Amino acid sequence: MGKEKKVAPDTNAALIIIDMQKAIYEPYWSEFGPRNNLEAEASLAQMVQKWRESGRRVIFIRHDSTDLNSAYRAGTDTHAFIENLLPKEEDVIISKNTNSSFIGSSLISKLSENGISQLFFAGVKTNNSVEATVRMSGNLGFQSYLLEDCCFTFAMKDFSGQIWSAEDVHNITLANLNDEYCRIIGSEQVDL
Amino acid sequence: MGKEKKVAPDTNAALIIIDMQKAIYEPYWSEFGPRNNLEAEASLAQMVQKWRESGRRVIFIRHDSTDLNSAYRAGTDTHAFIENLLPKEEDVIISKNTNSSFIGSSLISKLSENGISQLFFAGVKTNNSVEATVRMSGNLGFQSYLLEDCCFTFAMKDFSGQIWSAEDVHNITLANLNDEYCRIIGSEQVDL
Repeated sequence: MGKEKKVAPDTNAALIIIDMQKAIYEPYWSEFGPRNNLEAEASLAQMVQKWRESGRRVIFIRHDSTDLNSAYRAGTDTHAFIENLLPKEEDVIISKNTNSSFIGSSLISKLSENGISQLFFAGVKTNNSVEATVRMSGNLGFQSYLLEDCCFTFAMKDFSGQIWSAEDVHNITLANLNDEYCRIIGSEQVDL
Repeated sequence: MGKEKKVAPDTNAALIIIDMQKAIYEPYWSEFGPRNNLEAEASLAQMVQKWRESGRRVIFIRHDSTDLNSAYRAGTDTHAFIENLLPKEEDVIISKNTNSSFIGSSLISKLSENGISQLFFAGVKTNNSVEATVRMSGNLGFQSYLLEDCCFTFAMKDFSGQIWSAEDVHNITLANLNDEYCRIIGSEQVDL
């Protein structure tokens, strides 16, 4: 992971926080076992504060599900952003209703309007909306970083019926992404 | 997997074959262990023949890498399509140079021109170009199917240094994709 190596974000880099809404605390996500990275919210809250203080842009991606059974459905209590990660006046909120933050949303036009080409990602779940978004980000040519300690996921049952721990699922996503779609780093490597 | 349930493709459905070029037989892919689904090429060749006979469209996605170290680099011997899966006159060939077949290629315009909204995917590697493409396909609103026995991948070292077998990596990709981005089926379920 090269934890020792610092990364200095461009002055125009954006921090993109994906789907960090109360919905992610609903028990159904843990059907096959608990989440990983219990410190993710605290690490991300610290990152957000430093990022804002540096004058850089924070973008909140908000999942507005149209699925009646989803805790992410707009209009429900669990659709709200989680308490210690609330957008401020100066932040940008972008709505999506599919996994990738780049599809059916205003993200690309917002980045383009503001000349932003370097993106730092965090949020949930590592292997779903985060992975779908980061794969597209790299393929679209954005210089992409994933803050792996500011993401988390849950245990999963695979297609053969085998259960994988959240840590395993998380690590396989990171391996799929690293140096192919983005560079994986820890939040402590970000030099603001 | 619901292997018993047959799926009848729309008359206008396309079979999309991703990156099945000789490059995939280069030894470097097996650095961490062998591939899975040894019958994938044979199953896919059979599928392609039946698909063509039914009058439906076959689309070959060809990876034209610009990376000097890639066996997929255009102009090399290994850039060629593999012997038993060669395009015919009536097939479509679409070039790409990133992981997702939808980015920087003419795939979307080709599908749109021909009013194609239902896609059946096969190819390599399950957890890289196939997964990146199928995630986007579902998110873009195409009715998407993945023929899991007509795909394969290789063993992988994850981010913690642990080695996963090709079968495990394959199964975790299928679990990420199924019912979220596409429906996973076996080629024997396709009712042509």
